[in-house]
Amino acid sequence: MSVSALFTDLYSLTMAQGYWKNAMNRRAVFEVFFRRQPFGGGFSVFAGLETLLERLRELRFSGEDLAYLDGLGLFEAPFLDYLGKFRFSGGLWAMDEGTVVFPQEPLIRVDANLIEAQIIEGLLLNIVNFQSLIATKTARIWLASGKGAVMEFGLRRAQGPDGALSASRAAFIGGAFGTSNVLAGKTYGIPVLGTMAHSWVMSFPGEEEAFRSYAELYPANTVFLIDTYHTLKSGVRNAVTVGKELTARGGTFGVRLDSGDIHYLSVEVRRILDEAGLDKAGITVSNDLDEYIVDTLTRAGAPVNVWGVGTQMATGGGDGAFTGVYKLAARDDGSGGLVPVMKFSDHPEKTTTPGVKQVWRIKDRGGLSLADILALDGGEDSGFPQRGGRYAFWHPQADYRHFYHTLEGSAEPLLKPRLAGGRLVEAHPPLRAVQRAVQDGLETFDPSYKRLLNPHVYKVSVTEGLRKVKLALLANYLGEW
Amino acid sequence: MSVSALFTDLYSLTMAQGYWKNAMNRRAVFEVFFRRQPFGGGFSVFAGLETLLERLRELRFSGEDLAYLDGLGLFEAPFLDYLGKFRFSGGLWAMDEGTVVFPQEPLIRVDANLIEAQIIEGLLLNIVNFQSLIATKTARIWLASGKGAVMEFGLRRAQGPDGALSASRAAFIGGAFGTSNVLAGKTYGIPVLGTMAHSWVMSFPGEEEAFRSYAELYPANTVFLIDTYHTLKSGVRNAVTVGKELTARGGTFGVRLDSGDIHYLSVEVRRILDEAGLDKAGITVSNDLDEYIVDTLTRAGAPVNVWGVGTQMATGGGDGAFTGVYKLAARDDGSGGLVPVMKFSDHPEKTTTPGVKQVWRIKDRGGLSLADILALDGGEDSGFPQRGGRYAFWHPQADYRHFYHTLEGSAEPLLKPRLAGGRLVEAHPPLRAVQRAVQDGLETFDPSYKRLLNPHVYKVSVTEGLRKVKLALLANYLGEW
Repeated sequence: MSVSALFTDLYSLTMAQGYWKNAMNRRAVFEVFFRRQPFGGGFSVFAGLETLLERLRELRFSGEDLAYLDGLGLFEAPFLDYLGKFRFSGGLWAMDEGTVVFPQEPLIRVDANLIEAQIIEGLLLNIVNFQSLIATKTARIWLASGKGAVMEFGLRRAQGPDGALSASRAAFIGGAFGTSNVLAGKTYGIPVLGTMAHSWVMSFPGEEEAFRSYAELYPANTVFLIDTYHTLKSGVRNAVTVGKELTARGGTFGVRLDSGDIHYLSVEVRRILDEAGLDKAGITVSNDLDEYIVDTLTRAGAPVNVWGVGTQMATGGGDGAFTGVYKLAARDDGSGGLVPVMKFSDHPEKTTTPGVKQVWRIKDRGGLSLADILALDGGEDSGFPQRGGRYAFWHPQADYRHFYHTLEGSAEPLLKPRLAGGRLVEAHPPLRAVQRAVQDGLETFDPSYKRLLNPHVYKVSVTEGLRKVKLALLANYLGEW
Repeated sequence: MSVSALFTDLYSLTMAQGYWKNAMNRRAVFEVFFRRQPFGGGFSVFAGLETLLERLRELRFSGEDLAYLDGLGLFEAPFLDYLGKFRFSGGLWAMDEGTVVFPQEPLIRVDANLIEAQIIEGLLLNIVNFQSLIATKTARIWLASGKGAVMEFGLRRAQGPDGALSASRAAFIGGAFGTSNVLAGKTYGIPVLGTMAHSWVMSFPGEEEAFRSYAELYPANTVFLIDTYHTLKSGVRNAVTVGKELTARGGTFGVRLDSGDIHYLSVEVRRILDEAGLDKAGITVSNDLDEYIVDTLTRAGAPVNVWGVGTQMATGGGDGAFTGVYKLAARDDGSGGLVPVMKFSDHPEKTTTPGVKQVWRIKDRGGLSLADILALDGGEDSGFPQRGGRYAFWHPQADYRHFYHTLEGSAEPLLKPRLAGGRLVEAHPPLRAVQRAVQDGLETFDPSYKRLLNPHVYKVSVTEGLRKVKLALLANYLGEW
């Protein structure tokens, strides 16, 4: 699924032509960060990096694309020739895919000429925003299930075919053990799974025949959908009859509930299966699940073996977008060096933090994550951090809040080089390793940060050095009014 | 953007193999309907039909796809050979794209063999659900703006690259006059538009130089983004200075507000522009807009010329999915004729309405839409409707509610043939005609159905004949317990 470089906002191209004509196509550093946690949660999961890097490497304007641009009447022929040769040849730093992340910290740093950095903005945000949203949603559902078996079912409700595919990938990263989407299985090597539809049951003269036929076809992979007619009076009874036959032949089966009260029905169905000696038959549940419903049922001890989640996992439900933005942090002003810049805005929370930065995750000696801190990558913060050093951690919004901490555990730099001169720095990890990294990463955070509702806010701070740069720029600009 | 036939839920393929092995691949009729209006609204807009028909016509399993399926260990070689020759060769009826639609009524009817009908389920729902969601959201925003100029800006927050593309198409249908997404412009022939980013302003030593440079480059297409430093103290002042120069040279310009209080700032900016004699300069606003914010500002008389909407328009915001489902309505049980079938479920609202149906939109003599009614396509309802006839309109959920109405205006059948034997019945209308159809269609509904909050519920009923069929099936099945 390569994407044309035309997949960009028009202003990226009109501005690019401006930089090109003004001979301003100098080095610039943009950073991606987000402003608030989705779902009212306490953490997010960074996802989409491999997809992004692959798209960037193949980004081109085709002859057709250039002809279309020509027809808009906005672009000069020599600039279109330039676009015809366009490649992303810049550098890109990013956190590991699967890192647990927090607002205000750079997830990605693009270090390229201004035109390249501008043209990739939309594609970059699109991919990372969406996959991070879904990985985060899935991690929340996975935690709510008690780290149980969560399955992604969202193809039919996802936002377009690629919305579904990307969602399957991101859901796997976030903790889903498989997907119903066969193309996602092929594309990403994710396990594919499925049960049966009501239409299967309705295509037979009766439910029992429908179950028997399926059990004969798939003796190792049968999950009976038991709510087409009446879950307790018909569905589970027929599942017991056919399940016993199947078990006697050495097969295995489960049942799926897709309507009605899941707690009540799962308890009743479990009892009926157990009384029939079918205690190995698992119960899969579905029907508009989200992390809150899963949490309630898990805490109540509902005997659920597999959670099938569709709409909420594939779209994020009530929060349809991750709020990642892409902001200029430093630029070559013509002097050859990088000068930190910032956006002010009428909203303090839309004010950015200037300069080329690294994110350090500070852990205690036991490996528990304590806080993240943004430091300038060099300059005022050269040599940061030193083990045993005592550092001020300032609130990123340039207000008075701060604390001091002596580094006794570890400080890990989270941003690492991924593309250099447009080329991949190292091979992508397997998707299963990314999933594992999320689960290991979540373990390093106190449970209070992972509460579904009203979680503790993990601290993201700036160093003394970075704060000085920000305050100096603020003083300089505010002095003008 | 063709999509592999592997873009389907695994169970569609396991069930398909079952139908194939059991020699059950007979004719079946599935219908698509939805259960509730998104956004708490009173109407939806049906969209995605052209996209769907094009995807269905090109649907194939590639050799690679078949090799992948083979590797799953679930499918027999002769069935994979069958899939290798798979084409959608069935019939498809649907409403016109852009029709204003309501819960419970069939939007699409698929009349095909069981295997083909089953394999396309996921793709069909994915496309229609997403585009209908976005067209509906956009129509709501367009109405809230007083049928004003609404622009879609959602690329960077949309759910994947195709999520963005499909959203641009659907937003145009729903009333947006253009998009920022250049690839969508090329793909669908939608107007592309744009302003400038904060990074443009920050790439110059000062705001005034940034504005002047852009105005020189694009004298006919300049919109100054005025909130990078300070909207009123800096942005609008520099816009006035450079805008006057530009106007003197015969150019035109506008300004954009992207933060702060839109009402207060738009009034102030309008006043400053007017006082400078720049009354032709329009004001574009953006920043997390949705229909409620647009409605509030429109009613308050905020002097806004263009509404730029991103996240909410491209993702649906709080409602991430349209709830369209695909249910078996009738099947050939081996007798050669079609037999109506229904799903019962433990939830009355998940009970389906059986039989092959047509949807009739009943209008009064003045052309105002009064109600929709579902009738059997033939059989008990042959000859329905007759002008001057007095008919019972029954609540679709088989309860006692009903009313009588004498047809004095028009009764229009909404489902029309689109594919026959897998071939297109007629050419697709231009997208602009679809947009117009939405606007004309909305005009035929009383304003009470279009209220943002707590709208009047438009009645969708079933005929006496259809009710009889449903009650007979219910009695038959319920008699079993």
